[in-house]
Formats: sequence, structure tokens, C-alpha cells
Amino acid sequence: MTTKTTDTLQSFRERIGQIKNYEEALGVLYWDLRTGAPRKGMDSRSAAIGTLSARLFELQTAPEMGEWLSELEETGAFGQLDEINQRLVTETRKEYDRSVKIPPKLNQEYVVLTSQAESLWEEVKETGDYAAFQPYLDKIITYTNQFIDLWGAGATRYDTLLDMYEPGMTTAELDQVFGGLREKLVPLVSAVAASPHQPERSFLGQSFDKETQKKFSLFILEQLGFDFKAGRLDESVHPFATGLSTGDVRITTRYLDRDVTSALFGTIHECGHAMYEQNIMKELNGTTLSTGTSMGIHESQSRFWENVIGRSKPFWNRYYGDLQKLFPKQLQVPVDDFYRAINVVEPSLTRVEADELTYNLHIIIRYELEKLIFNEGVKAAELPALWNEKYREYLGVEPRHDGEGVLQDVHWSGGAFGYFPSYSLGNMYAAQMTDTMERELPQMWDLVERGELHPIKEWLTERIYRYGKLRSPSELIRAITGKPLDPGYLVAYLEKKYKAIYRL
Amino acid sequence: MTTKTTDTLQSFRERIGQIKNYEEALGVLYWDLRTGAPRKGMDSRSAAIGTLSARLFELQTAPEMGEWLSELEETGAFGQLDEINQRLVTETRKEYDRSVKIPPKLNQEYVVLTSQAESLWEEVKETGDYAAFQPYLDKIITYTNQFIDLWGAGATRYDTLLDMYEPGMTTAELDQVFGGLREKLVPLVSAVAASPHQPERSFLGQSFDKETQKKFSLFILEQLGFDFKAGRLDESVHPFATGLSTGDVRITTRYLDRDVTSALFGTIHECGHAMYEQNIMKELNGTTLSTGTSMGIHESQSRFWENVIGRSKPFWNRYYGDLQKLFPKQLQVPVDDFYRAINVVEPSLTRVEADELTYNLHIIIRYELEKLIFNEGVKAAELPALWNEKYREYLGVEPRHDGEGVLQDVHWSGGAFGYFPSYSLGNMYAAQMTDTMERELPQMWDLVERGELHPIKEWLTERIYRYGKLRSPSELIRAITGKPLDPGYLVAYLEKKYKAIYRL
Repeated sequence: MTTKTTDTLQSFRERIGQIKNYEEALGVLYWDLRTGAPRKGMDSRSAAIGTLSARLFELQTAPEMGEWLSELEETGAFGQLDEINQRLVTETRKEYDRSVKIPPKLNQEYVVLTSQAESLWEEVKETGDYAAFQPYLDKIITYTNQFIDLWGAGATRYDTLLDMYEPGMTTAELDQVFGGLREKLVPLVSAVAASPHQPERSFLGQSFDKETQKKFSLFILEQLGFDFKAGRLDESVHPFATGLSTGDVRITTRYLDRDVTSALFGTIHECGHAMYEQNIMKELNGTTLSTGTSMGIHESQSRFWENVIGRSKPFWNRYYGDLQKLFPKQLQVPVDDFYRAINVVEPSLTRVEADELTYNLHIIIRYELEKLIFNEGVKAAELPALWNEKYREYLGVEPRHDGEGVLQDVHWSGGAFGYFPSYSLGNMYAAQMTDTMERELPQMWDLVERGELHPIKEWLTERIYRYGKLRSPSELIRAITGKPLDPGYLVAYLEKKYKAIYRL
Repeated sequence: MTTKTTDTLQSFRERIGQIKNYEEALGVLYWDLRTGAPRKGMDSRSAAIGTLSARLFELQTAPEMGEWLSELEETGAFGQLDEINQRLVTETRKEYDRSVKIPPKLNQEYVVLTSQAESLWEEVKETGDYAAFQPYLDKIITYTNQFIDLWGAGATRYDTLLDMYEPGMTTAELDQVFGGLREKLVPLVSAVAASPHQPERSFLGQSFDKETQKKFSLFILEQLGFDFKAGRLDESVHPFATGLSTGDVRITTRYLDRDVTSALFGTIHECGHAMYEQNIMKELNGTTLSTGTSMGIHESQSRFWENVIGRSKPFWNRYYGDLQKLFPKQLQVPVDDFYRAINVVEPSLTRVEADELTYNLHIIIRYELEKLIFNEGVKAAELPALWNEKYREYLGVEPRHDGEGVLQDVHWSGGAFGYFPSYSLGNMYAAQMTDTMERELPQMWDLVERGELHPIKEWLTERIYRYGKLRSPSELIRAITGKPLDPGYLVAYLEKKYKAIYRL
């Protein structure tokens, strides 16, 4: 490598390290806010977050960063970089271009707008007052359209937004996979609803002592392979996972007295996110590649552990006895009834409470609406009617007011258009990977039945976790399964599982 | 105010705000490290702290800061500033001059050295291996002497160090107050030791359920006036208090199964620190004046609440019944015996376990040794013998090895010379203020006996807490008591209290 390239690389890597350090510090501040920071300190904390965020933006978008990137991108230089540095350059370039194209003033206005809209949303989701929210949503859509113009539209305008959360994903591909999914799921959901064999689950709504729930959550985390020396479990109103570094990945959960499944599956879900971040290769430490490669792949891991493993019969053949010991009075049914109860399908109005089967229809509705907004110019005023129509068509339910309809999710108030598909992509990736795993680990379900989950985590670590952002979602799914994303695996998985449970 | 002064003031205040924001962010990172951050994240966290600290130093010492200070210090400009801005300028000037005088390279070497020494100290305080530690201590002394040369020596070289922790305090003044204190305390300690009326306290060493201790700690905090909307209580190995902002002041404690007094008085102690920071006037928010004015005044508040109030008879006349209800089996003695048990005097080797009476002698020994080091050139090699000699003379005890002697405190390994006197200054300030409080709040002890502690907190808020760093320690003590610091109040307080307990 030439001396100049070596020097440039060093400056660039130092800057990347600083950026990562600011991201970690901000991560701690946000984690702290959500796990019990005192109310009266909010103003001061917001100011601190503002100062650090501004500095982070400065470090990311400084002219010298552009110069380093250009130098390292020159053919002579780029070829001499190792795989990690090459990837770091291409990823940083993408972020850099996206950031510098937005005038700071515009960004500032947008940050203020979305922060106001998020506060307002907290209110209107309770009152259902869409009229109050509509002008904010219209403005956010207008800003987002301006951003798309500045960034440049992809094959469609919505493609530009998708790519932010799932690099490489396109509307064309999603139309196909979501189309295939919807076509199969709508009749399956109807058949399930019409089945005379509805599981009984009222016993899950008894009172379950919270401290005992916590004990079981900690036990299950340990069984799954969560590394407590590189993470911790706390409580928060909205459960989340945050990777501060591979050595410090934190998850939260929420214990509800009358819903034992909430903390249980919430914990397993967040553990999936956490194990991804805990097992990224050490070589990426201190770089911006030391994180999950996309929201979709991240979600595939939380959903794999929560649904594919955590809601499977073999898993509960192994662990139901342990749970019964803690709640002998509440859990008197046999394991088969418990398994059916935790897999009840019920078309409902609320995404976050949806079961594994109907969940994807909630996502498809949002995807179709977002496309209408950005590709067809649909206005905020039209959304409630479109929302309700689609819920009636796909799920057979209709909101009584917008609070349980179009206002139910926080995403749009924060401007996170393009994010929703990640959830279903996660389900599809997870099903497709499981198919490969079952063939490469033929004893997989015996292992689960014996509570030997380590080889499964290792399998995922070798193929996904360790790479962090070093490989793109499509590279990963092709390398693992030999094929591009295919919704057929999720359909097959859901049909097999739910036809058995509902005896169709 | 001229436009130029207005502009300069605005730039200066913005910078102060940024500095405060970095201090808050770093405060959260340190708090997090000490309250359960996962072990494996330490390297990454250190790097994040390093990046933020370097930026903070940059913001504090940038040339423009020097220019703004010079402009604001000009007679025309300074006179136009309000009290807060004037104080902000003079305080910032002090910090600025101190920081810019140290060459960054020297500071860097010193940071590495003390961080190594602190790690080594963790080991040698267990093994007592002073020989291993001695070269590090010698180097730290050498660096500190270089710093004194760069900063400029005060009346004596040690004065320069004292002033860092207790602005305005001098060796001349301390010689006098500590001299007076030692002269009275040594015979009092001897008389107490010789008394035939030794309290019985073995009952305090029974097993006390930790969760119940926690419950009582939370109850006492609420009684004292700790604002839980502006703070929280956590657990850590070494209890501490940290003020992130006036709206977010955090304290920690440690629950020991067989020592009910440790968490109890630890919590009250830290609550004293916390109430100081929680009640600083809002006008100082977001400035570097929004903190305690000195270590000595800070310590006066923790010790006032812990000892003057928390170890008083009226306090336990009110609260002993509550504690007994939680521990009926362990606490069968009458309140008078409990009061005597929590005030046992026992000359010992270890400062942090010392009682209220002998504690000051531990401090005087360290003060005398630090003076010898910096004013008389005493070397690290000579310290163990000097240490042991003084313990024999003042306390009548002698360490069996250096681990329980000269190696017992972390301070010197971190280069914190000049810090120790703050602890005894705190005791002296507290006693002197109490004398005034008893006259200005004549019903003070009746209030305590009724558990009405609010007026006491208000009295202190009006006279101390609200001012933050707006007034110096000596300004405060004079304004409150009408006199400069006088050790006679502490002597009188201790003599009265312990002569009664030991029936002398």
C-alpha cells in the first residue's frame, strides 16, 4: 500500500472509531431514558443528546470524510484494501452521500417536526383524533418526498425508502413476494377462523406472579445462549434490544400480571436480536460494520427464536415442565394444550398483538399504503378509509375508530416510511433459513427437544451473526440457502403448522 | 451591553452549555459502568469515554475560549454582566488556565500512569505489597510536582493542590483548624476508650433481609426529602452520588446481610449529596455552576444528614419503631441502646469504617503526610513508616501490613492529593452550620423528633444548595454563621455527644 493510502486509511479508520464511540454513548443515553431515567432530567438530557448528535453528524459529514472516501475509492487504493476496509468504504460512502445531500436546515426542521408529531401521536392514538394528526402526517410526507428528490428516486420513489432499511430490496421484488404471500395467507386465515377446533387459552389470562415470570425469563435467556457477561435484561414499557458494542447488548421486557406470554415471548424475541449483535466477529469491533446488516435480517433472528423455536412443540416438550413447576396452579393443562394456546390465530385490529399467521397481513396493508403515498401521491386525508377497507378485505375486521386503525403505529409519526416490510421480510428469511437448517442439522428438532440450543446458535453465528454488516441481506440469504428470497418457505411453514393445530 | 459583548457572551454561554452536556453524557457513562454494565463491554466503553473526554478537553481549552474570556474580563464588559455570568467567567478562567498550562502530552502520560496505578492498587491493597506500588507512587508525585510548577505554587506547594478541591483553602488555615481539632480529639478518643460504659452492638450483626433493608432505605429517602422524580437509587459495590443535572441526581448503596447500618447510613450520606444537587437554583441549569461549590461543602451535607441528623437520638425516637416493625426479631433492644450502638467509638485502622469521632484523626494523618510529600520532599519510600507512627500516636493502633495501612485508600493512586482534607472540612462545616441552625430554627430537634425534616432541608436550600458554585465555600460559611471556619464547633459537638454516650 502507498504511504498516502496508508495515512488516509488510518485517518478514515480513526474517524470511523470516533463515530462508533459517539453511537455507543448515544446508545447508552437512549437506553437510560427508556429504563428509568428521572422525569425531571428530560430537558437536560435532551440537550445532551442534541449536542452529541450534532457532533456525530459533523464527524460523519465533514468535508475531509468525503476526501478520504474519494481517495480510498480510487482503483489503485481500493484494490489494496482488505475485505473489511473495502466494505467500510462502500457502506460509509452510502451514508455520507445520503447525509450530505440533505441541507442541515431542512434536516433540522424535519427533526423538530417529527419530534412534535411523535408527541402528538402519543395523544391521538388514545383519542383517535386523526383530524389533529393529519396535517402533521401530510407535512412529514412532503419532507420525505423532498428527501427522495434530493437522494434521487430508485426504480420507483418508494424504492429509495425501502433501501434505507433493507439495502438492495426493491418494490418490484416485494410486490412479488408479498403478492404470493397474501394470495396464500388470506384463504388460510379464513379456513383457520372457520375451523371447529379452536384452542382454549383462557388459562393464560390468570394471575402470574411477576418476580416468578422474571426468574423464568432469565432461565430461558440462559438456555438460549444469551451471554450475560456481554449483556443485561431490564424492564421498560416498550421492550427493545440495543447493541452498544458486541460486549454490551441490552434487552428489556415487560411483565404483565395477567398475560404470561407477553414477557415470555417478548424476552425470546429480543434475545434473538441480542444474540445476533453479541456474536459479530471481533474483527469488526469499533467499526460501523459491527451491527446487524438490515432490519429484515435482524427481525429474522428475533422471529426465528420467538416463533420458529419458541412457539414450537419440541421447545415446550422440553421447557413446559420447568414453567409448570413455577406456576403449578395456573398451568394444569397438558403440554399439547399449552402449545395450541400459545399459537391461537385470531384476525385482529392491532399489529403488535397479532399472531404469527395474521401478522404478515398487517404488514402487507402498510406496505401497500406506503406505496400508494409515495408512488401514487395518495394524501394523508385518504388513508383512514383505505386502511379500513384493506383490514376488512384481508382480515375481515374493521376499526371502530382511527386509534385502533391508521393511528396505531408510531412509525409514520417519526417518518419511518419503508420500515414495515422488514417485519415480514424477517418472517420470510427465518422460514427460508429454517428449511436449510433442518437439512444441514438433521437432528435440529431433537436438539430443541433436549434443550441443546447451542448448535443452532452456532449454525446461525457461522452463517449470519459473525458477518455483521460485512455482507448484505441478499448475499446472506443466497449464501445460506442457495436461492434469493422466496415467500414459499414461509407459506409452507405456516400451512404445515396451522393446518395441524386447527386440524384442517 | 455592546453588541460585541452580547455576541461574545452568547458564544461563551453556548460553549458552556456544550461543556455541561458532555459532562452529563460522561456522567451517565460512568454511572452505567458502576451500576451493572456488562464486563465484556469495558474496552469499547473505555474507548467511548476516551473520545468524549478528549472532545470535552478540546471544548474547554480551545483558543477561542481564551479569547472570549479575555473579552468578557475587560472592565467595560465584565461590569455589565449579571452575577451568574460574572461568576461563570471567573470560574471558567480558573479551569481554563489550569488546563492550558499542562502540555497535552504530559497530561496524556499522567492519565496512563494513574490508570495503571489504580489497577495495580486494586491488587496491592489486598496483598499489602507496597514495594510493587512505590515506584508508581513516586512517579505520580513527580508528575504532580511538575503540575505544581506549571500552575505556580501558592503560599506553599501543597496549597496549590488544596485549592483544587476546596477553593480558597490554605495550608496556613488548615494547620490551625486541624491543629485545634487534633489537640482536643486525641484525649477525647482516649477517654472514650477507657470508659467502663461501652455500648453493646452485637445485635446489629445479625442477618437482615436485603429486600427489607431496601424498603427501609427508600422510606428514609422519602422522609429526608429526596426527590424521586429528579433522581433514583441503585446498587453498587462502592456507594456514590452523581449529579447529572438538577433533575437527575443518582445515588447508590450496598446492602450487606450482616451489617444493617452500612446501607442505612450509606443511603442517608449519599442522600445529603443528592439533595444539595437537586436543589440548585434553576437559573444555573445548563451551566458549569450547577454543581456543589467544593468537596468540603458537599461533604458537609452528606455528613450533616448522615451524622448530625441520622445518628441523633431525636431521629431514632421517630424512626426506630418503623425499623423495628421491619426487623422485629433482630431489634428487641430499646431505642436508647440502639442509639448508643450506632454511635460506638472504636479506634481502628481503616478510614472508611471509622466512627464519627475518630474519623477526623484518619484525615489529619493523611493531611500531614501530604504536606510532608509536597512541602518537605518526603519520598514514597518513607511513607509506610511515617503512616504507622502516626496511627500509633493518634489512634493507638498499628497496621499489621501496608494493605491495612498506607495502601488502604484509592486517592493517591489516582493522583488525588489535596482531596482528603475535604472530609474533615465537611465535618467542621456541618457542626458550625448546625450551631446556627439550632438558633435560627429553635424547634429544630422537635421537628426531627416528629419526622418533619422538610424545614431543615429548606433552611439548607436557602443558604447553601440553591447557590451551586455561585458562592465560594468561605463566602457560604461566613454568610451562614457570620464567622470563618472554626473547628471549635465540631469539637463542642463531638464532646457533648460522646461524653453523654460514654458517660464521661
